[in-house]
Amino acid sequence: MSDPKSSNAMWGGRFAAGPDAIMEAINASIDFDQRLAAQDIQGSLAHAAMLAAQDIITDADEKAIREGLLTVLSEIEAGDFPFSRALEDIHMNVEARLRDLIGAPAGRLHTARSRNDQVAVDFRLWVRDQCDQAEAALTALIKVLVDQAEAGADAVMPGFTHLQTAQPVTWGHHMMAYVEMLARDRSRFVDARARMNESPLGAAALAGTGFPIDRDATAKALGFDRPMANSLDAVADRDFALEFLSASSICATHLSRLAEEIVIWSSAQFRFVTLSDRFSTGSSIMPQKKNPDAAELIRAKVARITGALVALLTVMKGLPLTYSKDMQEDKEQVFDAADTLMLALAAMTGMIADMEPRRDNLRAAAASGFSTATDLADWLVREAGLPFRDAHHVTGALVKMAEDKGCDLPDLTLADMQSVHGDITESVFDVLTVEASVASRQSYGGTAPDQVRAQIARWREALA
Amino acid sequence: MSDPKSSNAMWGGRFAAGPDAIMEAINASIDFDQRLAAQDIQGSLAHAAMLAAQDIITDADEKAIREGLLTVLSEIEAGDFPFSRALEDIHMNVEARLRDLIGAPAGRLHTARSRNDQVAVDFRLWVRDQCDQAEAALTALIKVLVDQAEAGADAVMPGFTHLQTAQPVTWGHHMMAYVEMLARDRSRFVDARARMNESPLGAAALAGTGFPIDRDATAKALGFDRPMANSLDAVADRDFALEFLSASSICATHLSRLAEEIVIWSSAQFRFVTLSDRFSTGSSIMPQKKNPDAAELIRAKVARITGALVALLTVMKGLPLTYSKDMQEDKEQVFDAADTLMLALAAMTGMIADMEPRRDNLRAAAASGFSTATDLADWLVREAGLPFRDAHHVTGALVKMAEDKGCDLPDLTLADMQSVHGDITESVFDVLTVEASVASRQSYGGTAPDQVRAQIARWREALA
Amino acid sequence: MSDPKSSNAMWGGRFAAGPDAIMEAINASIDFDQRLAAQDIQGSLAHAAMLAAQDIITDADEKAIREGLLTVLSEIEAGDFPFSRALEDIHMNVEARLRDLIGAPAGRLHTARSRNDQVAVDFRLWVRDQCDQAEAALTALIKVLVDQAEAGADAVMPGFTHLQTAQPVTWGHHMMAYVEMLARDRSRFVDARARMNESPLGAAALAGTGFPIDRDATAKALGFDRPMANSLDAVADRDFALEFLSASSICATHLSRLAEEIVIWSSAQFRFVTLSDRFSTGSSIMPQKKNPDAAELIRAKVARITGALVALLTVMKGLPLTYSKDMQEDKEQVFDAADTLMLALAAMTGMIADMEPRRDNLRAAAASGFSTATDLADWLVREAGLPFRDAHHVTGALVKMAEDKGCDLPDLTLADMQSVHGDITESVFDVLTVEASVASRQSYGGTAPDQVRAQIARWREALA
Amino acid sequence: MSDPKSSNAMWGGRFAAGPDAIMEAINASIDFDQRLAAQDIQGSLAHAAMLAAQDIITDADEKAIREGLLTVLSEIEAGDFPFSRALEDIHMNVEARLRDLIGAPAGRLHTARSRNDQVAVDFRLWVRDQCDQAEAALTALIKVLVDQAEAGADAVMPGFTHLQTAQPVTWGHHMMAYVEMLARDRSRFVDARARMNESPLGAAALAGTGFPIDRDATAKALGFDRPMANSLDAVADRDFALEFLSASSICATHLSRLAEEIVIWSSAQFRFVTLSDRFSTGSSIMPQKKNPDAAELIRAKVARITGALVALLTVMKGLPLTYSKDMQEDKEQVFDAADTLMLALAAMTGMIADMEPRRDNLRAAAASGFSTATDLADWLVREAGLPFRDAHHVTGALVKMAEDKGCDLPDLTLADMQSVHGDITESVFDVLTVEASVASRQSYGGTAPDQVRAQIARWREALA
Repeated sequence: MSDPKSSNAMWGGRFAAGPDAIMEAINASIDFDQRLAAQDIQGSLAHAAMLAAQDIITDADEKAIREGLLTVLSEIEAGDFPFSRALEDIHMNVEARLRDLIGAPAGRLHTARSRNDQVAVDFRLWVRDQCDQAEAALTALIKVLVDQAEAGADAVMPGFTHLQTAQPVTWGHHMMAYVEMLARDRSRFVDARARMNESPLGAAALAGTGFPIDRDATAKALGFDRPMANSLDAVADRDFALEFLSASSICATHLSRLAEEIVIWSSAQFRFVTLSDRFSTGSSIMPQKKNPDAAELIRAKVARITGALVALLTVMKGLPLTYSKDMQEDKEQVFDAADTLMLALAAMTGMIADMEPRRDNLRAAAASGFSTATDLADWLVREAGLPFRDAHHVTGALVKMAEDKGCDLPDLTLADMQSVHGDITESVFDVLTVEASVASRQSYGGTAPDQVRAQIARWREALA
Repeated sequence: MSDPKSSNAMWGGRFAAGPDAIMEAINASIDFDQRLAAQDIQGSLAHAAMLAAQDIITDADEKAIREGLLTVLSEIEAGDFPFSRALEDIHMNVEARLRDLIGAPAGRLHTARSRNDQVAVDFRLWVRDQCDQAEAALTALIKVLVDQAEAGADAVMPGFTHLQTAQPVTWGHHMMAYVEMLARDRSRFVDARARMNESPLGAAALAGTGFPIDRDATAKALGFDRPMANSLDAVADRDFALEFLSASSICATHLSRLAEEIVIWSSAQFRFVTLSDRFSTGSSIMPQKKNPDAAELIRAKVARITGALVALLTVMKGLPLTYSKDMQEDKEQVFDAADTLMLALAAMTGMIADMEPRRDNLRAAAASGFSTATDLADWLVREAGLPFRDAHHVTGALVKMAEDKGCDLPDLTLADMQSVHGDITESVFDVLTVEASVASRQSYGGTAPDQVRAQIARWREALA
Repeated sequence: MSDPKSSNAMWGGRFAAGPDAIMEAINASIDFDQRLAAQDIQGSLAHAAMLAAQDIITDADEKAIREGLLTVLSEIEAGDFPFSRALEDIHMNVEARLRDLIGAPAGRLHTARSRNDQVAVDFRLWVRDQCDQAEAALTALIKVLVDQAEAGADAVMPGFTHLQTAQPVTWGHHMMAYVEMLARDRSRFVDARARMNESPLGAAALAGTGFPIDRDATAKALGFDRPMANSLDAVADRDFALEFLSASSICATHLSRLAEEIVIWSSAQFRFVTLSDRFSTGSSIMPQKKNPDAAELIRAKVARITGALVALLTVMKGLPLTYSKDMQEDKEQVFDAADTLMLALAAMTGMIADMEPRRDNLRAAAASGFSTATDLADWLVREAGLPFRDAHHVTGALVKMAEDKGCDLPDLTLADMQSVHGDITESVFDVLTVEASVASRQSYGGTAPDQVRAQIARWREALA
Repeated sequence: MSDPKSSNAMWGGRFAAGPDAIMEAINASIDFDQRLAAQDIQGSLAHAAMLAAQDIITDADEKAIREGLLTVLSEIEAGDFPFSRALEDIHMNVEARLRDLIGAPAGRLHTARSRNDQVAVDFRLWVRDQCDQAEAALTALIKVLVDQAEAGADAVMPGFTHLQTAQPVTWGHHMMAYVEMLARDRSRFVDARARMNESPLGAAALAGTGFPIDRDATAKALGFDRPMANSLDAVADRDFALEFLSASSICATHLSRLAEEIVIWSSAQFRFVTLSDRFSTGSSIMPQKKNPDAAELIRAKVARITGALVALLTVMKGLPLTYSKDMQEDKEQVFDAADTLMLALAAMTGMIADMEPRRDNLRAAAASGFSTATDLADWLVREAGLPFRDAHHVTGALVKMAEDKGCDLPDLTLADMQSVHGDITESVFDVLTVEASVASRQSYGGTAPDQVRAQIARWREALA
């Protein structure tokens, strides 16, 4: 190039190669969109079959195309496919190779189709598959949580608010709380899948086509419920990807909360759980030490998925219809978020499956800090007929007394208690142990082991 | 205060009043959560009725509570209620006033309940109502878009990719693209509503309760489908708020795209539409100028909603179960995002209802730039049997010829055309006008006026 | 209105009042930009003085304007000013009131000025002031941290990685870590202030003006270093606001980390600190319980500020020059973020000032878990000349021995030690206590009390 | 593995290999942190030289280490280095290879150092280098913008607000607006670099070390201004990365605005610029069409960088001191954001260098829409002594007259004008052409060609 403005001197560092290299670097998508290869070929097979059925291409062409595409697919799966940056994207790479293999008929595959609806269908198929994978991975995690819950349905632990002991609950109840959250996550992926399950194929460049195509046929062949009803919308929107990222962000938020708990529970001060060596790392000089690496990484992963969501929302903000090149930024964000979510789910599943609650420590923590004070107050309301406010006053006085004596509530004598309020009877001791406390929370969804086991049973059936 | 550490000297500016004022400022939520007043009272009425039905409180108490709460509600609705920051939040404000009004029975209302499940139920009712409002507002906007589409079902305009004219489409088709997007938004709010429609009431502080409450009864009274199945989850999770914010962000993204188009269409260079004075602002010295203020503001509003989503995702990241005070940050984000969305939807509805497409300008723009070149290429494939690639080559040559002659494709003579490819016949002119082009896109969901009208009819029926 | 499209029936709920109310609701900014009143008047005073000095207006006009503006300011400060939504924004509200007060000269104030440069100067002055406030508030917080550090310069506590005890450190060292972070935050606000300290006034609508104004004079009068060098940039950019939000987000992230530590340290399992009643809340029935509400809320506040940053980045994304109405969304985000940051800083300052470390618990935690194992390994390298890897192996064996014996490293006998490696001598015990461990970390910036005190002294001098 | 819980059956899809593969996938960082190889070796060389200078290791060991590390570096640069996932990260990979090469002395390199300060120094060196690269890339872009400005210093174009023509400005002025923005971006990277330029090396695991190291020496050897003053802070904070991402986000926002303008300017409706073929893509059938792909992609890239900023802010939120594994998520975000920013800057530089303004279209657009109406109003104030408000009224009447006559303001006769206001004289025509308008904006920083050229000269000197 003789143009002084484009002399390489201007391009320091990474881009010394000049403008052509820069444009290729920013424009070509093949480095990442090759992950859509299987979907691209799947879409082309459906399109070609429809074209032949509609007599837009000949059966011979369709056969050549089909066999050629299957060859291309096997080359890609075998790792033998020579991806080319000069050919920009997966669509052009596949098409060029198909032409090498079968010649002229390759050119007819693109009849009544455009890269715009092609990439829309490829990406939609990919995201749809991730919804299915997320659903399966969530089911696996829910199962190990239900296992943990069942094994510890009556193991007492502190129920926290503000990371302060509030009331005793059970390990099983705590595990089942996450089952509920993750089940809602699962249903979000199911809803997202149903909403995105419409075929953009046949929208062509943006306006539809004059060829007598059969969009229902390609939709059906690709497992879609129906064709999309507006061709501009079909090539212009990526809300299905945004919805996948939203559901992923919420799910990853749930994972981050459980991960935070595991980190705290693993501390020397809590010692609530023991992690397996497989999901923690040790120290060569402190063999007793276990760093909860997997939990920390899962806690961090929500950030990555939220970042991807923000990125795609920002990309799509204010884009006029229909396709703008900006939208090429959709794929890497979704690929990375999906990989991150599946990895975080798998790691959490493994970590939970291996995790061992330390029942003695859990119970001891639950029994400290006058955790049954509300049980005492409730007893005073229920059995002694005190108004709520008075019951709180009496309870506060008794907690103060126990604190002064250096004991917990069940260690006070009946005489101690009656010195504060004369209506207290022996039966109060039935609610002052942590076991009695949890057993008493019999309201639907409460922490009583019976209630927890009922929920476990409901889930066992639902998961069967 | 004599403690030198707390002397006011340390607190510059806004917080000269010292630590107590700071704590009140950061801790009290009444300034914003008073918006939950109606929901709070609704929840308390249901709870009290259930307590009486279960014989946990007397019918007389229930009556006193009910009448007292209705008095409080009327005071709030009349603007007479003296909200107090010292009482921190809406729950305490209402409860304190109830005690003033009815005395002792007020204390019994809080039996088998806690602020934790109370705020969860209040906020869930509020968000559920916003889902309904979003659904209604989206329906209103969809209707005016369908009106616009119908009025311009055959008005030709350019279909853009990369903001470059790609193919002619119709105004109706473009309007209906947004109908599809917004309809998916609407279905997201419907799904979110269904998923969140479970009652947290009865979870109490976190563990459930020993009182013989009937959670099904309160759930039913409040319009919930069922009680939530895990009390820890009921007080700890805010994923329903995150899902509302996600759906709102995606919806606002769609609005920002339409808003951007309106801004561009209103420019002196495009002149595609005329906005009403009601949704634009003028200039005292340039009477012909109309700034598309409403469109610009709607375009910006997505930012605010996305910011709220990011904020709440960040708040919830890594929070251990169950309730942490961090979660008090949930409300302002959701309030602001909901208000913003409803305002943006209303403004867009008004602006669209008033907007007038300038048909002549739209058609002229559609007819420039050789916008029927793909129609020509398709004709060559379909009618002259050329392979796709050859058809493109011939088309490029004809476009070049027209450009050199300073005319558009339909202005070339048949002889001109045949000089490039001999198989071209008179019938080619049937596809070279923009009207012919759009009429030819008869594939399902395509831009042909018939197709567009079919979609309009489908929507009219659905909306009826 | 007789236009059926605008009948109120279309506008449900909040917007029943119809299109005019909607436009006012979305367009008017006076509800929030009244916070710019003082800056608006300050800017107008400087502008009027310059106009008179340049003989663009008369001295009499200037005097009338000045006195009128000061009257307006006093009305606003007294809370007597009748803000009007119909007048849209603070600029029009002030101008209209000025006209009421002084008549014709009010009209001349706007000579050589536009709302575009007016709002730019107002907002820039406001944000500049927040940089100063942030600097002052950070200095106050740094001081109480240095106080805490000094009081506990030799108080031993666990140094954590992965929330696992790694090595003993001192309380003073830990406090000073935050001093360093917050000092960097402070320098970010200083840099941001310096960068934004240029005057947009005189840019007029966008192109500058033909009046012979003196931009240096107004810049100087308003405390700016110089006028901005490009009038388009002056009215079009808001990067100063973005930089303020960025610095705030990073600062709030630091606060969130300290807040998280305080929440964990306050748990019954850690008991590392006691919070004052002023910055925590109690329970009526569990008097010993203290919820670290202020710490939790500070932890959450970073979310809000990050949300504001995301929002404004999203607003500004892809806006063509110069002013677009979208930019009206800048103020509420910055106002809320600034208020939030100042409140979080004040609350953290108060909480830290009041917080009491529990030295016995800190030391006991530091001394558990073989926390001096790396000291032992270092001793083996340094004194016994073992290669690092061998030293780790020997240390691991000794930790295992101590664990089996149920004791810690300093409790092993010399004979025990020599049974693992013969070169160990009595002097090893000099490094095995936590006090010896911390005292030995004499490298610059290390945890040795001398080092910590040296840093405290450095900061005392810098803060004097 | 015989444990049924870990049977591969549980792990569908990507993780069929079971828990060990999952942990490796989530835990190992070598796939990305190998980009820190040069920095890692640079840091180790400085550390080893210091250890020898302080007699902590022998000169012979230092020589072996140095030569070994240089061999490792050359292997990496040659692409011959066998990175191993089992060795987790770059530090372990280099160390293991060094041991292979030189044996025992390799073990002594890690004396008085830990992976915690090692990764902190590596990453800080990398980010510091990116600040330098950003500064250089911004300078290159500023230069081509100054070139554009100079070539079009007097080319008139419309100055827009709300994408509506407001006043005429010059192309040079518009280009220089971006020079100012980008120069502030550059200064942000300079400030960030200065703030981060402190050495964490010597912080060791977190507490400093008992070895007599010389932190000043290693700081100096690595180009740092000084060692960091607190070892906990040194290993715990990543605010330097957050600041880099913030500065990058703001810079990318500026780029997105220019990119949006280029997209709009390239439309058939605007035709303000011609892009080179190198930074746009054509259509095989519409040779005249140029899609502004590079501009669209640059517009989108801000999303990716903002996403990275959000991600790292979210990662760091609420992390207790010191190192947590979460922080491993810092690198990929920063790597990707830095690559993205450099690519966007390079592409914008190339695109601007090649871009050609279409002067005729720019001028014609500037001259339409009564763009000199404010000039007329200003003339009435300045020359005819009208109050501002009256001047606006007269101007509005004249614009209306011109509109009715189908002409622009300069086309009205003096008689026409005097029919509206008698004080108008012939000299008014001196301000009614767009050239006169821009020439009149002589205030500092205004759009008058002289003013623009003065700014260009100032920048030429600053860039020399």
